[in-house]
Amino acid sequence: MKYILRFNLACLLVLLYSCNCSSVESNSKAEEVSIIFPQGDKNTNDNFKGEVWVKSLVDADSLNETAVGNVTFAPGARSKWHLHPAGQIILAIDGKGYYQEEGQAKKILRKGDVVKCPPNVPHWHGASEDTAFVQVAITGRQNGATKWLQSVTEEAYHAAAKN
Amino acid sequence: MKYILRFNLACLLVLLYSCNCSSVESNSKAEEVSIIFPQGDKNTNDNFKGEVWVKSLVDADSLNETAVGNVTFAPGARSKWHLHPAGQIILAIDGKGYYQEEGQAKKILRKGDVVKCPPNVPHWHGASEDTAFVQVAITGRQNGATKWLQSVTEEAYHAAAKN
Repeated sequence: MKYILRFNLACLLVLLYSCNCSSVESNSKAEEVSIIFPQGDKNTNDNFKGEVWVKSLVDADSLNETAVGNVTFAPGARSKWHLHPAGQIILAIDGKGYYQEEGQAKKILRKGDVVKCPPNVPHWHGASEDTAFVQVAITGRQNGATKWLQSVTEEAYHAAAKN
Repeated sequence: MKYILRFNLACLLVLLYSCNCSSVESNSKAEEVSIIFPQGDKNTNDNFKGEVWVKSLVDADSLNETAVGNVTFAPGARSKWHLHPAGQIILAIDGKGYYQEEGQAKKILRKGDVVKCPPNVPHWHGASEDTAFVQVAITGRQNGATKWLQSVTEEAYHAAAKN
């Protein structure tokens, strides 16, 4: 009987150890999925609400006036309404985000979605209420800087999405 | 004794099952890591050597002349030398790739690396010998189409990399 108990204990320890390893491995892989580019620095200006991190990947220069940046929104975080004089392309890298153009319904963005926002069209983007969102923004600077507008109301942020 | 054997068998089955689940989960996550955008269609023109898949994510238009595409190179696959009249930005999404500009040493590209290739500078890119490579290419079309040049020699492809 003592032998059986010792064997039970050994089995239990092996099982617990294998469960633990499996769990650690999953967490590690889940983190890898969401990180391609560095998260960068925490935003400190008031163009965003909530926790947002920005990493510039490419600066615009005189030869190629396209800027590329990686933006990470914590759940609930979002930009103000704003527009880009040369337009913007958004690549959804991970998580669940929202995107809305003026006069249109709010859309849900998920990993692999792509948005092409025309020049001078007011829009906002951010994470959904309960899931972070990572995007790459590709922005032409040849027509001037981004123009920041009003905050997104709570009503607009929580409105029903189109998809 | 029979009881102990049955218990051993039960433990073994539970262990095997837990190992199997863990393995399937890992494979599934490994696949997720490398796929953000669809792989697209297999290239059929002779601007590339080896197996290459291209998925256009954004077409250039009159309002925003930036094209964005996801390119997947099988191990050993690469482009010919070529140049872009408005330059190109390359985002390394996954795997291990090579990039070389005319007159420079070949560089290794890994997930998270970014290259800004100036306008009209001949260059080539592709996968390494034994690992596939996924990139997002951001290309301005305002100054005309890509100009394709000569094939990359075997010597240049296999040359020692700078990093």
